[in-house]
Amino acid sequence: MSHVILCDIGNSFLHFYYSGRIWRENPHDITLKKPHIPIYYISVNPSFEKKLLDSHKKCINLAPYIDIPTSYKGLGIDRKAACKAIEQGVIIDAGSAITVDIVENYKHIGGYILPGISAYQELYKSISPSLSAGLNLGVNLYSPPQNTKDAISFGILKSILFMIKHTSQTKKIYFTGGDGKFFAKFFENAIFDNTLIFKGMQLAIREIEQKLQN
Amino acid sequence: MSHVILCDIGNSFLHFYYSGRIWRENPHDITLKKPHIPIYYISVNPSFEKKLLDSHKKCINLAPYIDIPTSYKGLGIDRKAACKAIEQGVIIDAGSAITVDIVENYKHIGGYILPGISAYQELYKSISPSLSAGLNLGVNLYSPPQNTKDAISFGILKSILFMIKHTSQTKKIYFTGGDGKFFAKFFENAIFDNTLIFKGMQLAIREIEQKLQN
Repeated sequence: MSHVILCDIGNSFLHFYYSGRIWRENPHDITLKKPHIPIYYISVNPSFEKKLLDSHKKCINLAPYIDIPTSYKGLGIDRKAACKAIEQGVIIDAGSAITVDIVENYKHIGGYILPGISAYQELYKSISPSLSAGLNLGVNLYSPPQNTKDAISFGILKSILFMIKHTSQTKKIYFTGGDGKFFAKFFENAIFDNTLIFKGMQLAIREIEQKLQN
Repeated sequence: MSHVILCDIGNSFLHFYYSGRIWRENPHDITLKKPHIPIYYISVNPSFEKKLLDSHKKCINLAPYIDIPTSYKGLGIDRKAACKAIEQGVIIDAGSAITVDIVENYKHIGGYILPGISAYQELYKSISPSLSAGLNLGVNLYSPPQNTKDAISFGILKSILFMIKHTSQTKKIYFTGGDGKFFAKFFENAIFDNTLIFKGMQLAIREIEQKLQN
């Protein structure tokens, strides 16, 4: 699969994958890729998608080829791709938003959405200037906070961790996304894998190739 | 205490109390009160406070007289007033923000802050237009959501309820604030009392009067 570039267009960045290497690019500053290498992409952000298409001729949207069994209506294509990559477990993509999806026997059985850490922070600021205290990622989560910064950090982190704990129980947790590594530290049954979405995309491409060969 | 008006100035509204009656007013449209009745107030919003002071001569800031034993630095005056009103339990003020404070033997032992329900909703919208799905207050909290609206509602409500459940355990919960009544329904050991802050203010006034008499 080293003959294609994979691209996952999110709400903050474009994430690329090419021959084992991953990197992200600012949507307003996309570097030009070699014209002979096709770009297979998925996108949840139409305006960033347009920016990629405007600058690159050979782009193929993988969305029509990525499907997983689910009764969830409106599941984002990035969530579908990540779910496609695993047989069993809980997938947590911790970026601008934190999506939590449960997979059993290659079947998506439901999921939910929390705000991402930085979105939470912006939110507190917007409620009151007195709540723009920044974040203490090392706040003690086991005793009642004693100042505003800890009170906010405790509220954000503990509520996210509770939700993940409750959803995962003893299931394996697959973390991905910008804050995935941070959250993975809190769980024994967890791994961090920021190629999860690309693995799902690769599977979809392999499926297309197999169909073409038959 | 029917000879004074009490006023709690928050980040969205001014809340008033006068002879057993409570009501709220928009900061940009404060009705004129009878000039011979003094207004005792507390405030967490300096610009709304100015609006009250500009239109009313006889206003007394109760902040210097409301104090409770705590090692928490920067505890909002509204949270102090509510804590002053009880001996023991957990106080949850569910407004623009949701503040959670633990009181044991008239002593504040810590607290934390979550975004309020409507602040959460605004937040999802700001992350992505696809997340502006509105809120389902009746979402099933015991099975994995199957659409975006439920996925967001589940994320908001369940994370708040988990935090409250974990903090309160078997302690009595005192809910106040605009969304207090809604949350109180989920707990057996809970009451809703939107006069809590005013009760704390009344206690402070009584303490001042007693000191003046001695």
